[in-house]
Amino acid sequence: MPAPPTRPALRARYDRRRQEVVDVAAQLFAQRGYHGTSIEDLIAATGLTRGGLYHYTDSKQGLLFGVLDELMDPLLEQARGIVGEPGRPEEHLRLVARAWLAHVAAHLDHMVVFERERATLEADPRWEQVRRARREFEHLLAGVLERGRADGSFAIDDPQLVLLALLGMVNHTANWLRPAGRLRPEQVADSFCDVLLDGVRAR
Amino acid sequence: MPAPPTRPALRARYDRRRQEVVDVAAQLFAQRGYHGTSIEDLIAATGLTRGGLYHYTDSKQGLLFGVLDELMDPLLEQARGIVGEPGRPEEHLRLVARAWLAHVAAHLDHMVVFERERATLEADPRWEQVRRARREFEHLLAGVLERGRADGSFAIDDPQLVLLALLGMVNHTANWLRPAGRLRPEQVADSFCDVLLDGVRAR
Repeated sequence: MPAPPTRPALRARYDRRRQEVVDVAAQLFAQRGYHGTSIEDLIAATGLTRGGLYHYTDSKQGLLFGVLDELMDPLLEQARGIVGEPGRPEEHLRLVARAWLAHVAAHLDHMVVFERERATLEADPRWEQVRRARREFEHLLAGVLERGRADGSFAIDDPQLVLLALLGMVNHTANWLRPAGRLRPEQVADSFCDVLLDGVRAR
Repeated sequence: MPAPPTRPALRARYDRRRQEVVDVAAQLFAQRGYHGTSIEDLIAATGLTRGGLYHYTDSKQGLLFGVLDELMDPLLEQARGIVGEPGRPEEHLRLVARAWLAHVAAHLDHMVVFERERATLEADPRWEQVRRARREFEHLLAGVLERGRADGSFAIDDPQLVLLALLGMVNHTANWLRPAGRLRPEQVADSFCDVLLDGVRAR
């Protein structure tokens, strides 16, 4: 894999093309499994030559980590931005949930790959970087819950369990959320926040 | 695969042995992946001969479905029993959640296999039977929520979203629940029901 270009305009085009390659890889890995997808399949689906493909990745496993980076990094960036602004914990929670659901909905293939290929991923040293990104995201969410507890707006016995409930609700949406489905991502985000904040008991 | 014995005492022993074989298969499939596990691996891990192994299954894929049946059928049986007894919707919800979490905690390998091997599973005609069992379980849960709405104890705008939130919370526990962990299954079940019923907002 040659070094990516350094001039800004060329670099932007390189990054855009690389993202297209990663998205094609996500789709194939989700449909056929990582082990069921060959370099030849990737060449055929991207329309690149073998040399062209290796311009964007060092290996098939490099593409797998490209898929995960696309799943984690932009979401983490958004979450950092949201909790870095002033706002009540409930507002932060609702904004992060909306960004998160929109991101999941736009990356359903990536989510499938992440769930299915855990065994392959964990054996690679690059997994540590993915874990760090996940931990930071969870840490940001835990911070929102903690601030709600501190300012008296949330009553939480076990913050870790509430965080795990929220992670479960949202991550599971990749199994059923469909681009043309009845439920829009922002509607799911709002409803899940309603349930998490107020529960379903009639008052 | 020869027919299982028909005399009750022999049948009970056959079923017990078969379940041990299925549990070994679940463990290997979870560790090495379904495609990464060979019949030879299963022979070595069960201590059976090849002929002995085929006494309990018609194929490796048969064992994969054995793993899923163990995951779904006993839980469905328990859930049917709980909602078939008299009780308020909240009581039914809490009892099903406890049974469900205990079952997940006792079948972590099975849960991993179910999540990871979806692509292999969906291509097999036996998948329809697994789908039916899942749908019935979800239908029982939806019925509990619906009865709570009907008797005025639950205020739910979109029952399907609440059901999906609950399924997400509980199924996700297989990713982090550990036999010797801080959180016991019944504690997780109770806390998740508390969150679902009352939310985390301070009052």
